[in-house]
Amino acid sequence: MDTGKNYSAAWLKYQLLEQDYREKYADLFSDIYLEINDQKIKKSIIEELELAIGNLFNKKVNFVSEPESAKLCIVDFKNNIIKNDNKIKKLNNDQKKDAFLLVNKDNRLILAAKNSNSKLYGLFKIFELLKLKKDLKNIHLFKQAANNIRMLNHWDNLDGSIERGYAGKSIFYKDNKLRKKLTRIKDYARLLASVGINSISINNVNVFEEETKLISEKFDLVKKIYHIFSAYGIKIFLSINYASPMEISNIKTADPLADQVINWWQNKVKKIYEEIPDFGGFLVKADSEGRPGPFTYGRNHAEGANMLAEALEPYGGILIWRCFVYNCQQDWRDYKTDRAKATYDNFKYLDGEFNDNVILQIKNGPMDFQVREPVTPLFGAMPKTNQLLELQITQEYTGQQKDLCYLIPQWKEILDFDTYAKGKESQVKKIISGDMFSQTNTGFAAVVNVGDDYNWTGHDLAQANLYGYGRLAWEPSLTAEIITKEWIGLTYTDDPEVLSTISEMLLSSWSIYENYTVPLGIGWMVNPDHHYGVNVDGYEYSRWGTYHRANHFGIGVDRSVKTGTGYTGQYFEENAEMYESMASCPDELLLFFHHVPYTYMLSSGKTLIQHIYDSHFAGVEGVERLQILWKGLADKIDAKVYNNVKNRLKLQLENSIEWRDRVNTYFYRISSIADEYNRKIYK
Amino acid sequence: MDTGKNYSAAWLKYQLLEQDYREKYADLFSDIYLEINDQKIKKSIIEELELAIGNLFNKKVNFVSEPESAKLCIVDFKNNIIKNDNKIKKLNNDQKKDAFLLVNKDNRLILAAKNSNSKLYGLFKIFELLKLKKDLKNIHLFKQAANNIRMLNHWDNLDGSIERGYAGKSIFYKDNKLRKKLTRIKDYARLLASVGINSISINNVNVFEEETKLISEKFDLVKKIYHIFSAYGIKIFLSINYASPMEISNIKTADPLADQVINWWQNKVKKIYEEIPDFGGFLVKADSEGRPGPFTYGRNHAEGANMLAEALEPYGGILIWRCFVYNCQQDWRDYKTDRAKATYDNFKYLDGEFNDNVILQIKNGPMDFQVREPVTPLFGAMPKTNQLLELQITQEYTGQQKDLCYLIPQWKEILDFDTYAKGKESQVKKIISGDMFSQTNTGFAAVVNVGDDYNWTGHDLAQANLYGYGRLAWEPSLTAEIITKEWIGLTYTDDPEVLSTISEMLLSSWSIYENYTVPLGIGWMVNPDHHYGVNVDGYEYSRWGTYHRANHFGIGVDRSVKTGTGYTGQYFEENAEMYESMASCPDELLLFFHHVPYTYMLSSGKTLIQHIYDSHFAGVEGVERLQILWKGLADKIDAKVYNNVKNRLKLQLENSIEWRDRVNTYFYRISSIADEYNRKIYK
Repeated sequence: MDTGKNYSAAWLKYQLLEQDYREKYADLFSDIYLEINDQKIKKSIIEELELAIGNLFNKKVNFVSEPESAKLCIVDFKNNIIKNDNKIKKLNNDQKKDAFLLVNKDNRLILAAKNSNSKLYGLFKIFELLKLKKDLKNIHLFKQAANNIRMLNHWDNLDGSIERGYAGKSIFYKDNKLRKKLTRIKDYARLLASVGINSISINNVNVFEEETKLISEKFDLVKKIYHIFSAYGIKIFLSINYASPMEISNIKTADPLADQVINWWQNKVKKIYEEIPDFGGFLVKADSEGRPGPFTYGRNHAEGANMLAEALEPYGGILIWRCFVYNCQQDWRDYKTDRAKATYDNFKYLDGEFNDNVILQIKNGPMDFQVREPVTPLFGAMPKTNQLLELQITQEYTGQQKDLCYLIPQWKEILDFDTYAKGKESQVKKIISGDMFSQTNTGFAAVVNVGDDYNWTGHDLAQANLYGYGRLAWEPSLTAEIITKEWIGLTYTDDPEVLSTISEMLLSSWSIYENYTVPLGIGWMVNPDHHYGVNVDGYEYSRWGTYHRANHFGIGVDRSVKTGTGYTGQYFEENAEMYESMASCPDELLLFFHHVPYTYMLSSGKTLIQHIYDSHFAGVEGVERLQILWKGLADKIDAKVYNNVKNRLKLQLENSIEWRDRVNTYFYRISSIADEYNRKIYK
Repeated sequence: MDTGKNYSAAWLKYQLLEQDYREKYADLFSDIYLEINDQKIKKSIIEELELAIGNLFNKKVNFVSEPESAKLCIVDFKNNIIKNDNKIKKLNNDQKKDAFLLVNKDNRLILAAKNSNSKLYGLFKIFELLKLKKDLKNIHLFKQAANNIRMLNHWDNLDGSIERGYAGKSIFYKDNKLRKKLTRIKDYARLLASVGINSISINNVNVFEEETKLISEKFDLVKKIYHIFSAYGIKIFLSINYASPMEISNIKTADPLADQVINWWQNKVKKIYEEIPDFGGFLVKADSEGRPGPFTYGRNHAEGANMLAEALEPYGGILIWRCFVYNCQQDWRDYKTDRAKATYDNFKYLDGEFNDNVILQIKNGPMDFQVREPVTPLFGAMPKTNQLLELQITQEYTGQQKDLCYLIPQWKEILDFDTYAKGKESQVKKIISGDMFSQTNTGFAAVVNVGDDYNWTGHDLAQANLYGYGRLAWEPSLTAEIITKEWIGLTYTDDPEVLSTISEMLLSSWSIYENYTVPLGIGWMVNPDHHYGVNVDGYEYSRWGTYHRANHFGIGVDRSVKTGTGYTGQYFEENAEMYESMASCPDELLLFFHHVPYTYMLSSGKTLIQHIYDSHFAGVEGVERLQILWKGLADKIDAKVYNNVKNRLKLQLENSIEWRDRVNTYFYRISSIADEYNRKIYK
C-alpha cells in the first residue's frame, strides 16, 4: 500500500487481506458499537477503524448505538456484556495499569478495556492479529501493561537538530518553530500508541536558550503538539531548564528553597495546567554535564526535585529527575574516582527523601549506553523511591543506525537481571514495574531514534528497536524472538523465508556489533564527540572518567572492593560477590570489573588476547554473513527498503573492518602477543 | 609612548632619546634632502621621518631642495655625493636585489639606496640605530638583501576568521568585507617594511567561495589594500582558486590547456593589471588537501602553473605554486606509501618544465611544520626551477602562541642545512637566494602569525618570530642571538637584565617546547584538527600519512632505502648516507628516519626510552624556569605585557605537564620499561 505520504507507514501498513481470511472475518467488522468517554480518543478510534478495516477488508465500517446490534463491541470492563469474565473479575479495579480483554463471544468480538487508552491499545491489537492472520473465532486474550509509565524522550532541539539523532532532522521543529505540516506528528503518535507508548517528552534534556522558552513565550507550540498526542492517549512532558526563573524572568537565583523561586514555579505550573489539564510533567537533567541544578545552591537532589514536584502535585503532574550525575572533569591520572560509582553515590543516600510524584530516571548502566555494561546498582537499592529505567533506542554508541544493532536482546538481559534487592528473583523488570515495592509511578523511558528520514530511523531495520521498545515496556516478559517475528510480519510480510532471515539478522546483530567493537564490557573505544567509529585511546586520557588502562601486560579497570575502586560493593551481596572476583565475574563484563592480563584464561577457554583477536575477526565475518542473508531477500523486499539496508550493510562492513584492524593492531602492538591462527594483523 | 591606538606599536615605538645621545645627533636630522621618484613611498618616508624624529628628538624635520644644504641626504646610488663609494662601485647595478649604504661623511649622514624601497629600508635602519643608541659618527654600513622575494602569506578568510590564526581575527576582513578602519593595516605595512618584507598574499591559500570573488566582484577590496601596502613597497599577491573560471563564470572546465580557460585567465589578469600596474601575482594551492587543480584534467603541475604564468608574464607578474601536494587519503595499514616522499615525487621530474616567472613554494620540511623535521629534499634538486622556502611563523604545531616557541633557531638550522646540491657548502639559504643557480625569482615566504589582538600575535613574545623572519629573509646569515637582542632592544628596552633574560627565554624556548612534546622528529602526537595539546595516537590511524608506529619494542618510521620507504634516497648522496644508517643519523631526527628499539643507545649515551622520559621531565622544568625568569622582570616590563606573558606561561605549564604525563604514560604502558630515576610516571 502506498500511503501517499513522503514517509513510510512502518508497522502500520494496511493491505487488503487474502480473500479466504477476509471472508471468514469480514462480518465481524460490519457493525460496531463504541462505548467511550474521551472524545478525542473516540475520534481517533473511529478514524483508525475506518482506515484499517477500509484497507484490510475493503469495506466501510458502520457504527451502531446499541451493543446488542453490533458485531464488534468496544466497551468498558464494567459493561454488562463482559463484566462476568473471570479475567476481569480477578482484576483489582483500583489498580492504575492499562488493560484490555479481547474475546469472541457467540461470533461477536468484544474488546473490553480499563480506560480510553486501553481501548486504543486493544484496537491496534485487533489490527495486528488480522494482519498476522490469527484466529479470532476462539480468541480470549487478556493484556495488562506491566508498567504505568511507557515513555519516550526526544532529544530534539527547536532549531531542528537532534542530539544523538541519526535519521535526519526533527519531525517536530525547524528554525525554532513547529514544522509547517503536522500530519507526520499525528502518524508518529499513531505508531507510538499502537505499541502502547503513553508518555513523551518533546525536547532535549539539554535545555538551551530557545527551548527554555517552551514554558513561556513558546508555549503555544507545546499546546499544538499536545493536541496531536492526547488524541492517542500520550501525555506530554517537557524537559525544563533548572535555571528557568533566572533565564526567563528577573529572579536572581534558582535556589529551590527560595520563596520567590518556589512561587515562580508554582505560578508557571498553574498556567500550564490551565491550558493543558492533563499535562504530564517535567523531565530534568540537573547538575549534569554542565547543566544547572540545586548543587549550585548547596541543595541536594531531593530538595531540588521536591520543589518542582510540589508545584506539579495539585494537578497530578509528575517530576522525572535524571540520575546521570557524575564528575565530568576527571583527571585521567586519578585512579580513585570512578564514574561508575557516581549514580549510586549521588542518590542512594536520599532514599525516602523524594516526594511520591518524583521519579528517578536511571540509565540502564552506570556509564552511558555502551554496547555492554553491567546494570546500574541503584536499581532496587532505593525501595522508598520511584524508579524509571532509561534505555537508549537511538544508537549513539551502537552503530548510529548505519550499523545494524538490534537492542531488544540487550534490553532483555537488563530487564531480567536479578538485583537480589529482596532476595532471589528481584529482577530489574519487577522493580521498575512497581511490583516489588508497591509503587505506581514507575516504568520505562528511552531516548528515541526517529527523525525526518523517509523510513523514520535512517536504517529501515532500526524501526524494530522502536517497535520492540514499546512492546517490552508493556510486557517485559515477551521474548526477543516473539517481538522480532511480530515486527517483521507487521512491517514486511509473513513469508517464512523473510521471517527467518530477518530474524536471524536482527537477533545476531548486537553480538556481531559487540564482537567487532569493544571487548568484554570495557567500553569507550570510540571517536570522541560524535561517537562513531573506532578510536582505542579516544577517551583514554580525557576528562570524562572513561578509561581502559591498557598497558603491555593487560587491560581493564579494577573496580573490586579489595584492590580497586570499590564499585562492586554497591551491588547487593550476591552480585557484589560475583563481580568481585575475576573467577566468578562473567566473561562479557570482565574488563569492566577487573584489570586482566592478556594471558588470563577466560571461562570460554581462550586467553584474553586471543579472545580479542578472535572476536574481532568474527565480527567482520558476522557482517559479511548479514550481507549474504540480506542478498537472499532481494526479490522479497520492496526495492527502497532493500537498497537502504544493502547500502547500510556496506557502510557497516567498512566500519567493522576498521574496528577489527585498529583494535587488533593496537593490542598486538602493545602486548606483542601474536594471533594463534596467524591471521592478518597489521604491525 | 602611548600610541593612542588600540594595538601595540610593537618594535616601532619611538620614545624621546636620552639627552646626551640626543644632543650628539640632533643636528644630523635638521635639514633633510630626499631624492625619490616613487611618490607614494616618498610620502611614507616623510611621514616616518616626522613621526620618528618628532618622537626621538622632540623636533620637527625640515626638507631642503639641494643636497648641499642638507645634513641627512637620502639619495640614489648614482647621486654624485656617494657614487664613488667603494661598496657602490663594486655593485652590479643590473642586479635586482635591494640595497642601501649608510655613511657619515663630514658630519652629514648619507643614505644612498638602490631604489625607492631600499630608501625606506635604510630609513628604518637609521631609526633602529638611533633607538639602540649606536654610533653614527663613524658609520659606514652597507646592506644588501640576500633574497629578492621576502614574502608573507596570510591565511585570512573574508569572514574575518584566520586558518591557523592564534591572535584574534583578521586585521583585514570582517563579515566578507574590508574592516572599517584601515589605519591598522597601514601600521602593519609599516611594521613589515621596517624589517624588509616586500611581498604579501592577502588571503588564505584555501580559497573558498567568497575569496574566489576577490578577482571579480570583490576586487575593489584588493585595490584598497594594495594602496596601503604599495606606499610601503610591498607587492600584493592573491591566492586564487584554480577552478575560478568554473566558479565565477560559465565555463565548464578549468583545464589549463583549454583555450577558453587560457583566454579567461588572460582576460582576468589584464583587468587586474589595468587597475594595479604593479600587482605581484598569484599564489596557488592546487591538487592539495581537496583543492582543485590540473590533476583533474590529466595535466601535470608544470602545465597547470605555466598557463597562469603566461597570463601574468606580460605584466611582470609572478606565479607562486605551492608544493604541498600529497595523498591525504592514505590507509594507515599501508607501509609503502610515505607522505614525506610526496613533494619530491610530485615535482622533481618536472625540473626545467616551469616558466621563468613560476616559483615553487616549498615547505621547509617534507611533512607539515612539525616542531622538528628534516629539510625537504627538493631544495637544490631542481636547478632549473625557482624555489621559495615556505616557513610557518604562525605556531600551528608549535604551541599556538599560548606556549612560547621562538622559531629563529629552527629557521637558522634550516637555512644552514647543507643540501650538497653542488657539493659541500650548498646550504638551503644559497639555493633560495638564487645565488647557487643564478636565479632572481627566489626567496622566502611564510605564513604569518598576526591577528587583531592588542599585541598582534596573542603572545607578546611571539612578535619576535615575525620580526626575526623579516630580518632573516633579508640577511639569512644573521645569528639568532643578534636578531633576538635587536628585537628586545627595539621593543622593550636595552636594560642588560631584560636583554639577557628575554634572550635566554627566547633562545631556549624551542628546545623546551620540543622536549615536552614530540620526541626525536617523529611528529604528529597532537590532537587532530586544531593541533594543540597532546594526543599520542591522535594521527596514528588516520588518513593523513602521519604515523609513529609505536609498539612494545620501539617506535619510528623506517624511511631508509634498504628496509624502509626509500625516502632517504631523495637526498643528495652525503645526506642520503647520513640518514640511511641509524648510527650516523642525528639523534634529533632518529625517529623520523628509523624504527628504533626503546633500548637503543642514542649518541647522547642514553637509551631511547630514557631519553623520552628525561626530555619530558626536562621540558616541564624548562617551562618552570621560563616562569622564574619572567617573574624577575616584573618591575622592568610594562604591566600589560608582563601579565600577558605571565598568563601564557601558566597555560604553557599546564600544557607541558599534560604532554609530559601523557607521553611518559603512553611509552611506559607500551614498553613496560621503568624510568631509571623512578620519577612519577602514571600507570
